[in-house]
Amino acid sequence: MAESIPGPSTGEFGKIAKELGIVLVTSLFERRAPGIYHNTAVVLEKDGSIAGKYRKMHIPDDPAYYEKFYFTPGDLGFTPIATSIGKLGILVCWDQWYPEAARLMAMAGAEVLIYPTAIGWASSDEKAEQDRQFGAWQTIQRGHAVANGLPVVSVNRTGFESDWTGVTDGINFWGQSFVAGPQGEILFQAPAHEEVNTVIEIDLARTEKVRRMWPFFRDRRIDEFGELTRRFRD
Amino acid sequence: MAESIPGPSTGEFGKIAKELGIVLVTSLFERRAPGIYHNTAVVLEKDGSIAGKYRKMHIPDDPAYYEKFYFTPGDLGFTPIATSIGKLGILVCWDQWYPEAARLMAMAGAEVLIYPTAIGWASSDEKAEQDRQFGAWQTIQRGHAVANGLPVVSVNRTGFESDWTGVTDGINFWGQSFVAGPQGEILFQAPAHEEVNTVIEIDLARTEKVRRMWPFFRDRRIDEFGELTRRFRD
Repeated sequence: MAESIPGPSTGEFGKIAKELGIVLVTSLFERRAPGIYHNTAVVLEKDGSIAGKYRKMHIPDDPAYYEKFYFTPGDLGFTPIATSIGKLGILVCWDQWYPEAARLMAMAGAEVLIYPTAIGWASSDEKAEQDRQFGAWQTIQRGHAVANGLPVVSVNRTGFESDWTGVTDGINFWGQSFVAGPQGEILFQAPAHEEVNTVIEIDLARTEKVRRMWPFFRDRRIDEFGELTRRFRD
Repeated sequence: MAESIPGPSTGEFGKIAKELGIVLVTSLFERRAPGIYHNTAVVLEKDGSIAGKYRKMHIPDDPAYYEKFYFTPGDLGFTPIATSIGKLGILVCWDQWYPEAARLMAMAGAEVLIYPTAIGWASSDEKAEQDRQFGAWQTIQRGHAVANGLPVVSVNRTGFESDWTGVTDGINFWGQSFVAGPQGEILFQAPAHEEVNTVIEIDLARTEKVRRMWPFFRDRRIDEFGELTRRFRD
């Protein structure tokens, strides 16, 4: 069910955030207006209020998933959400494959990138292909950490979901949520087939040390980046 | 010694390329005009002719390395070089940290990214830091492969070079040249402290399969990428 923001879910999650005194990143199906729905991440503050929201910018589409049918592409841009624990660069799922998204968040002052996501293996894929896919997924997000000298938190679903339409053989969400430091180093990784609740400490001061050592932002050839706004340079 | 292009080195390497019937990527210190010198990669064709050149776009600087003193930033842009074996996206060393560079090469039709590079460990760094640095270096380049669905070839120097100025304790070039496939999977990796000559087969047809599976180029939010031409979004 799509719902408004604020709405029942943000109310419920707001209570939890307040009760536990935490900043909480949630994901929901936003009903913005009749005919306009978004895949939206809402961040709740320690006092239960809404700190901000991010509407998924990159919308994929695969047979049986219908994401381009359900989700209007986000129009809030790549804007970090200011909270009591820092500026959070929230990005959602398919966004994780785009270095541009991570970069724009970092350039706007994000102190950490957080990716709520639901990705898994098609049952029809062979083991070697499954390994390449998980590797690609983790590698590119660790790459965002490196490129921007920022920690990355990626929270992925686990478990199997069958496809009642019969278009696919179902999906095995591959879990393995992880936290990477600003050199892309793995600080934590969950198992593939088990839900996990855990607390991982991140040293935000590490970012400045790493960026002084490797000051990529200093040297970006911004005079030559204009064509990044094209679809293809042909 | 800085030299012109064409010049003694391109002549010599051209002979080798012709003799062996190979396309050869070389790296040299280009003297373009009095007071204008570049870090330039020249690609030689199988017949010994010059297929094209790439002038390093991102110039780093570290105490004792003086790269911003010696090298004028490249002004040929991120333009692949057409050869008899395909369009080569040549990038040099510090460029390897920039997702924008890899993306612009891919958007211009590069079929493979090739990074001649010379990077190593400062003797003063601890083992854990050295591991993070190598990991970051390899991860971000594998990330470029993933982001663009392209194979990546990274060719790095090996061996120790002392610093006669005494500013540093010298550098241990970390070798470990590698080839990654278009999902970032490692196809080959050389040892750290040994020179290697080898032939690695790359299946260029794999790119289209991978890009159909994960069509990132289809969904890039180019309407929101304009700010990538800024230094920082503050």
